[in-house]
Amino acid sequence: MDPKVMADTIWTLVTAMLVFFMNCGFACVEAGFQQSKNCVNVLSKNFVVFAISTVAFWFLGWGIMFGDGSPFYGIQGLLMLKGADNSPATGDAYQGVYSSIAWTGVPLLAKFFFQLVFAGTGATIVSGAVGGRIKYLSFILFSFLYIAFLYSVTGHWIWGGGWLAKAGMWDFAGSTVVHSSGGWAALAGAIALGPRFGKYTKDGKINVIPGHNLSLALIGTFVLWLGWFGFNPGSTMAADPRLIAHICVTTNMSAATAILGATLTSWILLKKPDLGMTLNGCLAGLVAITAPCAFVSVESSAIIGLVAGVLVVLAVIFFDRIHVDDPVGAVSVHMVNGVWGTFALGLLAEDWVSPNTTGNGFFFGGGTKLVIAQLTGIVAVAAYTFVVAFIFWSLIKLVIGIRVSLQEEIEGLDIGEHGNVAYPDFVARKPHYSFVGLGTSSTEEKTPEYAGKR
Amino acid sequence: MDPKVMADTIWTLVTAMLVFFMNCGFACVEAGFQQSKNCVNVLSKNFVVFAISTVAFWFLGWGIMFGDGSPFYGIQGLLMLKGADNSPATGDAYQGVYSSIAWTGVPLLAKFFFQLVFAGTGATIVSGAVGGRIKYLSFILFSFLYIAFLYSVTGHWIWGGGWLAKAGMWDFAGSTVVHSSGGWAALAGAIALGPRFGKYTKDGKINVIPGHNLSLALIGTFVLWLGWFGFNPGSTMAADPRLIAHICVTTNMSAATAILGATLTSWILLKKPDLGMTLNGCLAGLVAITAPCAFVSVESSAIIGLVAGVLVVLAVIFFDRIHVDDPVGAVSVHMVNGVWGTFALGLLAEDWVSPNTTGNGFFFGGGTKLVIAQLTGIVAVAAYTFVVAFIFWSLIKLVIGIRVSLQEEIEGLDIGEHGNVAYPDFVARKPHYSFVGLGTSSTEEKTPEYAGKR
Amino acid sequence: MDPKVMADTIWTLVTAMLVFFMNCGFACVEAGFQQSKNCVNVLSKNFVVFAISTVAFWFLGWGIMFGDGSPFYGIQGLLMLKGADNSPATGDAYQGVYSSIAWTGVPLLAKFFFQLVFAGTGATIVSGAVGGRIKYLSFILFSFLYIAFLYSVTGHWIWGGGWLAKAGMWDFAGSTVVHSSGGWAALAGAIALGPRFGKYTKDGKINVIPGHNLSLALIGTFVLWLGWFGFNPGSTMAADPRLIAHICVTTNMSAATAILGATLTSWILLKKPDLGMTLNGCLAGLVAITAPCAFVSVESSAIIGLVAGVLVVLAVIFFDRIHVDDPVGAVSVHMVNGVWGTFALGLLAEDWVSPNTTGNGFFFGGGTKLVIAQLTGIVAVAAYTFVVAFIFWSLIKLVIGIRVSLQEEIEGLDIGEHGNVAYPDFVARKPHYSFVGLGTSSTEEKTPEYAGKR
Repeated sequence: MDPKVMADTIWTLVTAMLVFFMNCGFACVEAGFQQSKNCVNVLSKNFVVFAISTVAFWFLGWGIMFGDGSPFYGIQGLLMLKGADNSPATGDAYQGVYSSIAWTGVPLLAKFFFQLVFAGTGATIVSGAVGGRIKYLSFILFSFLYIAFLYSVTGHWIWGGGWLAKAGMWDFAGSTVVHSSGGWAALAGAIALGPRFGKYTKDGKINVIPGHNLSLALIGTFVLWLGWFGFNPGSTMAADPRLIAHICVTTNMSAATAILGATLTSWILLKKPDLGMTLNGCLAGLVAITAPCAFVSVESSAIIGLVAGVLVVLAVIFFDRIHVDDPVGAVSVHMVNGVWGTFALGLLAEDWVSPNTTGNGFFFGGGTKLVIAQLTGIVAVAAYTFVVAFIFWSLIKLVIGIRVSLQEEIEGLDIGEHGNVAYPDFVARKPHYSFVGLGTSSTEEKTPEYAGKR
Repeated sequence: MDPKVMADTIWTLVTAMLVFFMNCGFACVEAGFQQSKNCVNVLSKNFVVFAISTVAFWFLGWGIMFGDGSPFYGIQGLLMLKGADNSPATGDAYQGVYSSIAWTGVPLLAKFFFQLVFAGTGATIVSGAVGGRIKYLSFILFSFLYIAFLYSVTGHWIWGGGWLAKAGMWDFAGSTVVHSSGGWAALAGAIALGPRFGKYTKDGKINVIPGHNLSLALIGTFVLWLGWFGFNPGSTMAADPRLIAHICVTTNMSAATAILGATLTSWILLKKPDLGMTLNGCLAGLVAITAPCAFVSVESSAIIGLVAGVLVVLAVIFFDRIHVDDPVGAVSVHMVNGVWGTFALGLLAEDWVSPNTTGNGFFFGGGTKLVIAQLTGIVAVAAYTFVVAFIFWSLIKLVIGIRVSLQEEIEGLDIGEHGNVAYPDFVARKPHYSFVGLGTSSTEEKTPEYAGKR
Repeated sequence: MDPKVMADTIWTLVTAMLVFFMNCGFACVEAGFQQSKNCVNVLSKNFVVFAISTVAFWFLGWGIMFGDGSPFYGIQGLLMLKGADNSPATGDAYQGVYSSIAWTGVPLLAKFFFQLVFAGTGATIVSGAVGGRIKYLSFILFSFLYIAFLYSVTGHWIWGGGWLAKAGMWDFAGSTVVHSSGGWAALAGAIALGPRFGKYTKDGKINVIPGHNLSLALIGTFVLWLGWFGFNPGSTMAADPRLIAHICVTTNMSAATAILGATLTSWILLKKPDLGMTLNGCLAGLVAITAPCAFVSVESSAIIGLVAGVLVVLAVIFFDRIHVDDPVGAVSVHMVNGVWGTFALGLLAEDWVSPNTTGNGFFFGGGTKLVIAQLTGIVAVAAYTFVVAFIFWSLIKLVIGIRVSLQEEIEGLDIGEHGNVAYPDFVARKPHYSFVGLGTSSTEEKTPEYAGKR
């Protein structure tokens, strides 16, 4: 047995397992940042979405993303991994229909498993932004469509040998392929749904709807951070000692400076070091370093993270001001910082980090070539994903609806969608099992007049 | 240093660590699915059981399971790993008394560590089914006996070169050796104990006693799923690139389709996609694919999981109907689907997946030979484990008792057994610290007349 | 590519990731063992501390710890890893300024990443002991100073080729370098701060302030145990099959017997098997085996753990008796058992486990030489760390203060320091949002007269 194939496969599979575990992280962060009355629903969405992604990516997504074909989507070996393939052969020795991923010398199913867990994280980004009001079935349906026709298609453009790859755009581990893709689909969903009841009042006031469990959110963030040590260093799909160590350090450094950036920004703007902002700051730094992690120095990774930490706080405030209700800040974390990281690669890439790839970025004498390629990729993925996602959301709205009833939303989706209560042994601050009507509230608190778009 | 021994040892140890972490998963799932008044007790059982397993498997279990000896149990090198052994030598080069596990070329303590964490998961399966009423000390005692005289003995039959191995029975990673073994012992315990007070009323009504923390249960399930990527692919105990990638994919696919199967079944039968059923569905799919993961195609793994997802929902309903009180569904998950997975191997194995092992199963032209061997193993392990477990439970009952007092059960085992409260800062829905007597309840709710077997 | 460099780097990075994840474990244990009104603060401290550690260790700590220089601190290549280095070259082939760590053949950034996550765990030990009353900013400041001038300096003495290394002191994975170092700094902090308001009354009574979430504490302990399989076996920084398997087993065995020791001790002394003591017992066993894990037999590891389990319960009781308020038992776990483990190495080391390192300990015919070296190290690190830490705490106290106001402490640090509430949807047993004054309490419960040192 070739020791290199053994080592590369161990590395690819172990890091894939860590990326898989990010689904647990997303579930915890998103549930922790939302209300207890919707907790079961949030958890269910984040759990079932990986099952849906598995089936969708196996059935169709892998072939569209990595199958040989047009510059826009894969055609050969389309369904259920049934194309010819002689992996782990690489380069000229490779014979098969998934040639865009033949640069890595691991067995076909190792490639598939690694890419599958990536697809799963893309789909799960959406769930946070649409939380607290979406129909469970509608979310499941969208997730399938997202994997099969959004994620995989733009993934083909960049990682499947498509037109953006040929245009010289680089995205090492998916700031754009995974994060801003998921972020744009999430933004489309949040807009299509409208805000949660009570989030914005008629007189323009923004209500804070605090998350119910910050311990859960903290666990989730640490799990995601851990998972990112699979996400980024694993994207080598090879146990290249110098490079994987380098990526571990840039990834971690960006997270660290982003935490400090977000903490300081919230301390200044909100007067206190808000924990939610700090956690989202960490995730923002991780999202931002995802594209450039293998192309920039440790010093540059510190700068990228610091900017990401500031950006995410400003973005959360911005989206709230324009009344886009994103309960967990998914758009600010994944879309905004996916864009930032992809762009930062164009500015800060240095040829010595991964020779014969990106070349030098703008600040290191590479001129505007790389920056323009990066911007092309950012805009193209944004336009395609946002527009098609919005069409999908609108179609689902037409056919089965996307939003639960107002009564169910107020009572909580846990009872309405699942018949479960997340924490039945504890007394809730506001009773969330009985219906609180519009102006006919049976609770002591007066229900204010809200301006929820419906 | 031989690169293969290095890679194989890394793989074996890293996957063993993931299997170890399943103890955290079991603790979270079992605590989340039970009441907050018993939470400390559930956590304590799941925590201490791994310590007990470590000592028991080191002292006696390893030798019984893997020591050379009779077809029924090991004899040589029985205590504390003290037998001769020249690992990592394999095959004909091996000289020692643990020859049944000399097929893997890793050091002795790597073999031991991997098998130890497996034993630990076997013991922890039992804890869920006996929750809410078992004495802490009695559980500890049973766990020791289970590892030393149940798990290790039937393990010897199948993995230790015993009579079932020679009869041609296959169980790659332990659907039978670990899961249905633990499941049968759990069933014996649940029957020996009788149901929790209030679970079944005199007029035959089945009360739902909801779990207190579904976030915890969700975390636990994700941790178990992650752990299964150690459990199944790690059972190669070798970094065989093609095979470990294959097993990652079959394992994940079965979990995914089982989630969908259980969600749909509960949606149809219970009118809503119940989260508890969905989580148990996932675990059922993982249990079922454990035996056949290295012998079946990806397509077959999808079918095995789908069936498991349906089976577990039906099984939970069935055991409730016959008044076997299993608070977390451990028997339905581990016993029922351990049996299903072991049997499915006989139906769906294909020779090409792992040449020179199982040969083809029934549906692939292999005739009934493999099916019969699998059934033999299923029945033999069931009979031995259930009968001897029941004898152990009965002996413990005679000597120190197995069930806490009714007063303690109603108040909660946390106070009674441990003097702890899991969540002292929160107001509980029903006060669970003060004694609620039989008919002399001091709470507002009337205590109905229950038919708890005592 | 050299297969050994590949395997060693995979091993070093994967185990480093597990050690990183210990930050999640510490956060969960420390939050779970403290009150819900301080939960956000505890989580925030444990989260931000890793970001601070990353920056501090990158900027200064690494160079002080591993840079060539004096026997007391590193001088060359001091800042930001900028020294010459031709890793992964080892031994005589190594050319660079970090020669004390040139024994491992992995790239420089792999060494840095592994050592960085170790530094992070050192800093996080402190946070538990100072919980419930420390100012957030003061903790951040101390953490930076701790990494840069305490941890790294004594680390240089032992792992950086300094005077203790030359004196023949051994500490394989950091019972002293990490754990008792952090423990002494924690003790200095707990003393400098004084106890929490209400912990000790004027008449000398010790109040129990129970942790708010034992599920969280349990998760944290399992995560730490998992992380220790990175901490100890990973400290080989090489995939040496026999040794890493050995260390996995000694590490696990010590944890297991420590659990049993602590459970039994608390069962005897406190009449019940207290879960908190059991969890701390596990951590104590892991701390104690950290120094000797690569030098002692499996049997000795069982003894080391058993003693640690007893010690930690006695230590917790002792520190409470002398009114040192350590809300989570950090000093008892990390300082006391760090000392015990380092000392036990001197007693129980056996030459055959890692030839040409420690030689035999006292009980195996090695005489008093090793014991004296170990004691020298224990005392030197204790004196330096405790004294300088106390000076740092005192300086911070002078300049910006270290303790929050009494009002804030009573209300909870979550509101005061962060403006967050950890679990806003649940009714708290005691309202912790409104101010409970000294004798002017607006709640029903009378506030007793407390003797909190201020």
